[in-house]
Amino acid sequence: MATKRKFRFNDFGLGTKPTSKGYRALNKDGSFNIKKVKVPFFNRLNFFHELVTLSWTKFFGFVFAGYLVINFIFATLYYLIGIENLTGIRSSDPTEQFMEAFFFSAQTITTLGYGQVAPIGLAANIVAATESLLGLLSFALATGLMYGRFSKPVSNITYSTKAVIAPYRDINGFMFRVYNAKRNQLLEVEAEVSLSIQRENSHLRDFFSLELERSRVVFFPSVWTVVHPIDENSPLYNLTEKELLDKDAEFIATIKAYDESSLNTVHSRSSYKSHELSWGEKFVYLGRMENDKLLIDVSGIDNTEKADLN
Amino acid sequence: MATKRKFRFNDFGLGTKPTSKGYRALNKDGSFNIKKVKVPFFNRLNFFHELVTLSWTKFFGFVFAGYLVINFIFATLYYLIGIENLTGIRSSDPTEQFMEAFFFSAQTITTLGYGQVAPIGLAANIVAATESLLGLLSFALATGLMYGRFSKPVSNITYSTKAVIAPYRDINGFMFRVYNAKRNQLLEVEAEVSLSIQRENSHLRDFFSLELERSRVVFFPSVWTVVHPIDENSPLYNLTEKELLDKDAEFIATIKAYDESSLNTVHSRSSYKSHELSWGEKFVYLGRMENDKLLIDVSGIDNTEKADLN
Amino acid sequence: MATKRKFRFNDFGLGTKPTSKGYRALNKDGSFNIKKVKVPFFNRLNFFHELVTLSWTKFFGFVFAGYLVINFIFATLYYLIGIENLTGIRSSDPTEQFMEAFFFSAQTITTLGYGQVAPIGLAANIVAATESLLGLLSFALATGLMYGRFSKPVSNITYSTKAVIAPYRDINGFMFRVYNAKRNQLLEVEAEVSLSIQRENSHLRDFFSLELERSRVVFFPSVWTVVHPIDENSPLYNLTEKELLDKDAEFIATIKAYDESSLNTVHSRSSYKSHELSWGEKFVYLGRMENDKLLIDVSGIDNTEKADLN
Amino acid sequence: MATKRKFRFNDFGLGTKPTSKGYRALNKDGSFNIKKVKVPFFNRLNFFHELVTLSWTKFFGFVFAGYLVINFIFATLYYLIGIENLTGIRSSDPTEQFMEAFFFSAQTITTLGYGQVAPIGLAANIVAATESLLGLLSFALATGLMYGRFSKPVSNITYSTKAVIAPYRDINGFMFRVYNAKRNQLLEVEAEVSLSIQRENSHLRDFFSLELERSRVVFFPSVWTVVHPIDENSPLYNLTEKELLDKDAEFIATIKAYDESSLNTVHSRSSYKSHELSWGEKFVYLGRMENDKLLIDVSGIDNTEKADLN
Repeated sequence: MATKRKFRFNDFGLGTKPTSKGYRALNKDGSFNIKKVKVPFFNRLNFFHELVTLSWTKFFGFVFAGYLVINFIFATLYYLIGIENLTGIRSSDPTEQFMEAFFFSAQTITTLGYGQVAPIGLAANIVAATESLLGLLSFALATGLMYGRFSKPVSNITYSTKAVIAPYRDINGFMFRVYNAKRNQLLEVEAEVSLSIQRENSHLRDFFSLELERSRVVFFPSVWTVVHPIDENSPLYNLTEKELLDKDAEFIATIKAYDESSLNTVHSRSSYKSHELSWGEKFVYLGRMENDKLLIDVSGIDNTEKADLN
Repeated sequence: MATKRKFRFNDFGLGTKPTSKGYRALNKDGSFNIKKVKVPFFNRLNFFHELVTLSWTKFFGFVFAGYLVINFIFATLYYLIGIENLTGIRSSDPTEQFMEAFFFSAQTITTLGYGQVAPIGLAANIVAATESLLGLLSFALATGLMYGRFSKPVSNITYSTKAVIAPYRDINGFMFRVYNAKRNQLLEVEAEVSLSIQRENSHLRDFFSLELERSRVVFFPSVWTVVHPIDENSPLYNLTEKELLDKDAEFIATIKAYDESSLNTVHSRSSYKSHELSWGEKFVYLGRMENDKLLIDVSGIDNTEKADLN
Repeated sequence: MATKRKFRFNDFGLGTKPTSKGYRALNKDGSFNIKKVKVPFFNRLNFFHELVTLSWTKFFGFVFAGYLVINFIFATLYYLIGIENLTGIRSSDPTEQFMEAFFFSAQTITTLGYGQVAPIGLAANIVAATESLLGLLSFALATGLMYGRFSKPVSNITYSTKAVIAPYRDINGFMFRVYNAKRNQLLEVEAEVSLSIQRENSHLRDFFSLELERSRVVFFPSVWTVVHPIDENSPLYNLTEKELLDKDAEFIATIKAYDESSLNTVHSRSSYKSHELSWGEKFVYLGRMENDKLLIDVSGIDNTEKADLN
Repeated sequence: MATKRKFRFNDFGLGTKPTSKGYRALNKDGSFNIKKVKVPFFNRLNFFHELVTLSWTKFFGFVFAGYLVINFIFATLYYLIGIENLTGIRSSDPTEQFMEAFFFSAQTITTLGYGQVAPIGLAANIVAATESLLGLLSFALATGLMYGRFSKPVSNITYSTKAVIAPYRDINGFMFRVYNAKRNQLLEVEAEVSLSIQRENSHLRDFFSLELERSRVVFFPSVWTVVHPIDENSPLYNLTEKELLDKDAEFIATIKAYDESSLNTVHSRSSYKSHELSWGEKFVYLGRMENDKLLIDVSGIDNTEKADLN
């Protein structure tokens, strides 16, 4: 059996590293509790990636702030060249003239060009021609960013808050449930579950991959209960609830699926620590028939009932 | 043999769930008769996905309505700021002035900017500068949406309306035909067929995956007849037409292919219920040679002729 | 051996169909000599696909013609509404007025909007506002098309014009050469070769997949000689040049690779008929060292020299 | 063992070609020391690819130069048609008039259209209408290029400068370290390592694929030490440092990963020549716990310490 376990040993890339008791490698939302420090700045930088993953509020804030700053810079340029090189300026007050230059800049960078105000002379024309080109390129960038933001595939694979140890056939099983909250269909859904436990009398952690009753489903239109049967080959075999808590166990789940609408593979991950595990409970079935349709009430994803363990 | 069947057991993710007699898991067009209810609203939302999958009529309706509403809002803003802050307004009638503000707004948001009407003063200029930025961003979004809509890979894998039980070598086979109606080439086409039947004296359903004579073809330039040979390992072995009807059988077919022009993998699926199955018929060959070209008349996709079963 | 052959039997999806002598399933450029006829029109249509695969000349012709037609239509609308609803029209000659309306339309649809000519009144303003929205949407479409056209991955896998039967170790082999003419790197290149021969005294064709000495290379920076060793398991074993000509043999090659710059998988295919096969020739090595660089002269891709067969 | 080695023989596509001593097939940055020459020009050309992989400085230089050239051409056209066909020209000096035509062209191609200067008459209007269409199409191209440039997945897999031969369990191993310098998560990371050595008394090179302790990790949040155990099946078995130098060994590493943010597979490669190999050194562990987070100091990627070899 030792060999067997060794065979199923699976480093998820998280390392057999010394960690303190209670350490959680993976948060519930799938982010890691690992941070690289002192990464060289220019290697790290990924301007597009940052702008695509920013929240919408911050993104629009960024765009608006950039718009103000660039117009301010160009207004200053027009002002320095001399306000007399813009036709149609109405005011003779310097501050108001600056404002008019500012709005002229806005009309130029958006290629709006009312023409009420227009540049005269070489310098002002060079600045305006450059600004309109810059406007087009910025807009090209904005178009790419908007597309990049919107076309990101959104998987919203929702995990049950708790996992359970429930009876499974004539043994028991480790189980949790997932469903796809989005309307797009996920296909060829694959799950992998891994167990990380603290080695006895040591600060090291071992990782075991858990064999699943079924690790792939072709369709995923409803709720999928992922099941690891606790047979004699399982690293969970004969372990009690208390032992699992003592070993500071963490169950790491990854789900990979093909998103039919974005045509991309999406990845999702979550984790269950040993205290998020209910022993002797089983999940309640969520479906009912209505007019030849099978309705699945996903709001009951966490509903369990008592069940005697084998 | 029991073991064998167990081995080939294949839950397509549709579940061994109690369903009423006559239930169809998958419609002919590939949509599911399963509906998730009470999905949290914000989880479900996918603005981009909705706008990309909308019909063209609805999409243009949506764009046009949005254009009217936004111009109406900005026209109101210009009107509230005071129509005297727009130069070139011709009318003195309030309604007509509002219309002029409306068209000025349209000229601003599209960055058209004739300049016949133009903003004066701080407030009107701020609104106009904001509107033109908003116009550019909306247009960036529209560009992304248009690209997203057009570049969606369109597989149009057409299934024969009926499947047949026809003689195959010295046994019989379950067969249906498919072809790609689009001009783009599909490559590395893979088929999977699954059988769902009602368990005897039970409301549960079992799923069996059916072994195919050939589950993958490299090219797909013409018509492909997908064949499941009914040998002793087949769950259809020795079953009669009446038994299949009694068991409320459903054949679920999925086809996956690489689309050479969109460079994406496309998925297609359909299903045949037991009453859509013709026993003792075989498909008619559709090709004929003409000037060194092989012509395939796909309009005959459903053509069958009588054939004695083995 | 019969079983073995059966095992390696490989329908490329081209069918064991009756074809006339001399039939070529696949042309040298990878297109098929198979044509689907009577495909329902609306199923077949794929507007985006057509516009993306059109030649550049035709594409620009199409865009320019569309620009003329749309401007003509809108010019007619402005003319019908009444030329007095456009300010700044200079001519009193109807034909010249129509031309001015035409150019005003061009200024509107491109959102250029000089403003020298501008709409007055409800009807002209509605048409102009609609036209500028239409312009933006058309331009969004054009942007998508340009991107779609340019970002198509271009594999330019160049095949040697002839294949050879050359000595290989202590037997002989079927060989051809390929190289990537583009500067982008192809990775994980996989080749598949299939042989199609006419069945004796029959109009049917059999397909055999040919085992390759190496069917995958990780890198593809230079020239790859694809080799099928003609051992006792080969369907070519003991066949003479004349027999191959009589059997009207066709070698179908497909190459699939990951294009590092477009991040897509590209596919390429070609075919060699038996008369494009040189017996007793081997390919000449094309490399030479220069300053620690290995130079490969790809212009010699077809260079062969005599070689005694085993 | 000979058979075994033959089995693991792996041509990376670099060829068993005669090369001079000290030849490096792959540079540290992953580029090849192989150059194809005499590639037919039109086959080689890939306009989009060049513009997408150009440095940003060159890209903007190219755009700006193109802008100047096109405006110069159109200014010449307007000038040839006759400056009197543009309204609003202020100067009577030919050079200044040409400059005004130049800026009018810039206002037209960017669809800015102030309207201070505007075309009159057929010829000038035709040129202006054509120029604005050309402007829109160029801008469509620029948008695609910007998106293509920004959305390129950037893997920045950083390799340790040196590889080591370090103790591994009760034998030794060939090891190097890698980490992902970007913030985006890489998943399903796969490594392949190959050894290229000069054949004794020959100019030919042999390639061996090296078996890894672990060739795939699911997550890659920190540093991964890639290990090839030097057991009796390893082509490195019993080889000394001097022998490796004599054989002019080159270790070729390729890493392939799924980039969660760009949703693409990224490839990276590097190589270690025998003189870049430290014998009897092992890599130092880089992690430390801080507030339940594991911090990895990647600046120490090259840190090694003495270690006695087995």
